[in-house]
Amino acid sequence: MKKITTLFLAAACVISAEAKLVTKTVEYKQGDTTLEGYLAYDDAFSGQRPGVLIVHQWMGLTDYEENRAVMLAHLGYVAFCADIYGKDVRPQSTKEAGTEATKYKTDRALLRLRVNAGLDELKKNELVDPKRVAAIGYCFGGTTVIELARSGADLNGIVSFHGGLDSPAPADGRNIKCKVLVCHGADDPFEKPEDLAAFENEMRSANVDWRLIKYGGAVHSFTQPTADGSLPGAKYNERADKRSWQDMKQFFGEIFQ
Amino acid sequence: MKKITTLFLAAACVISAEAKLVTKTVEYKQGDTTLEGYLAYDDAFSGQRPGVLIVHQWMGLTDYEENRAVMLAHLGYVAFCADIYGKDVRPQSTKEAGTEATKYKTDRALLRLRVNAGLDELKKNELVDPKRVAAIGYCFGGTTVIELARSGADLNGIVSFHGGLDSPAPADGRNIKCKVLVCHGADDPFEKPEDLAAFENEMRSANVDWRLIKYGGAVHSFTQPTADGSLPGAKYNERADKRSWQDMKQFFGEIFQ
Repeated sequence: MKKITTLFLAAACVISAEAKLVTKTVEYKQGDTTLEGYLAYDDAFSGQRPGVLIVHQWMGLTDYEENRAVMLAHLGYVAFCADIYGKDVRPQSTKEAGTEATKYKTDRALLRLRVNAGLDELKKNELVDPKRVAAIGYCFGGTTVIELARSGADLNGIVSFHGGLDSPAPADGRNIKCKVLVCHGADDPFEKPEDLAAFENEMRSANVDWRLIKYGGAVHSFTQPTADGSLPGAKYNERADKRSWQDMKQFFGEIFQ
Repeated sequence: MKKITTLFLAAACVISAEAKLVTKTVEYKQGDTTLEGYLAYDDAFSGQRPGVLIVHQWMGLTDYEENRAVMLAHLGYVAFCADIYGKDVRPQSTKEAGTEATKYKTDRALLRLRVNAGLDELKKNELVDPKRVAAIGYCFGGTTVIELARSGADLNGIVSFHGGLDSPAPADGRNIKCKVLVCHGADDPFEKPEDLAAFENEMRSANVDWRLIKYGGAVHSFTQPTADGSLPGAKYNERADKRSWQDMKQFFGEIFQ
């Protein structure tokens, strides 16, 4: 009996195998600042579908985020990579990246404006079901999607992948309306224990619907194949990368019902 | 095109809907002690399949664990509820439960013998693929499955649901061969922060493949519908229950490949 099930499922997989990927850069604005994002969706899917905003790590929008967008497109989502820094502002070294990221980490109000602009751009897309929207972010992008939530933005959920969890305004947790999933490298040296504890208390005090997953053996940047360990404390971890991706998919399955 | 896929999948679901549940109590031994466990599997599945050992909370083996066994049976596993306390040793109050559980928490060597006896009994079952075995435990049972791992037992993985994470012998983490998933209520008052930190360090020091998930808003016993809050700090949390069950299923999907 189970064999018949397997055959049907296999047939179903073959029939739905044709993808029709559509990608494009998208110029948009926040105030007077021109931003350049990246859109991806799979035209083999029909009708409105959930939208996922992707926020980049400290080097700015790179092919890393574009690849994640393509992966999400093939899962049936409209994916939009936000640009936090500005069109043509793409750090060329970790030093430049640190300078850029610090601008926004020390001006959370501006960071919230920038990421909300990306969310608005995503929601404008006619293929996006505005009632099923999430945001994911990597590293600096993880911090950013948490700030998106702290701004009281209207979306279903956020996922931070090895994002910085510190906050100059922990009371802002009370603004969070969406569900929160934090994927954290258990050995991430960039996350001070006191910041992690403060984050948990922020979530707790504000009765946020939150979950935090610690991946043993993983440090910072665990989802990024180019993180080769040359920057101490930041290294790709295939196991944690695959698991956190599955955890995100499961989270989407729940929040997009 | 996607509509054809949907029809095939729907047809597949109808064909595989017939379950043939088989359950029975099973007497077995550890040393001179007679134990009584509970076995469940679904005869609609054919051939060998993964086995899952279930270890009870402090009240002993009850219908709670039996229900979990039935749920696992319908997912295609052979489920065996271990008996740690002994045949006919079934606490009738939380006071008796505390006394029983303490016997084993203060004699981890005996606890390891008892749970290994349950694992052996599960593996003996001809329907169980001995290369695909896991153990899950609730509360006292969570502590127990971690002790099973610390005994160096040969199985693919363990899942602790709101288990006590303290250990009198943290160096024993070095014996752990299997993968470890800990599902923890973020507001569980029964878990001292120092024990949680010590557990993480044990896993870290021994290079265990571990993951810890904190469910915001959940306290102790979050998977148990009868935990109504009359015992302070122990209360059912439907959201955390459903999510942790999904997390376990996802974990099984990975470890049973």
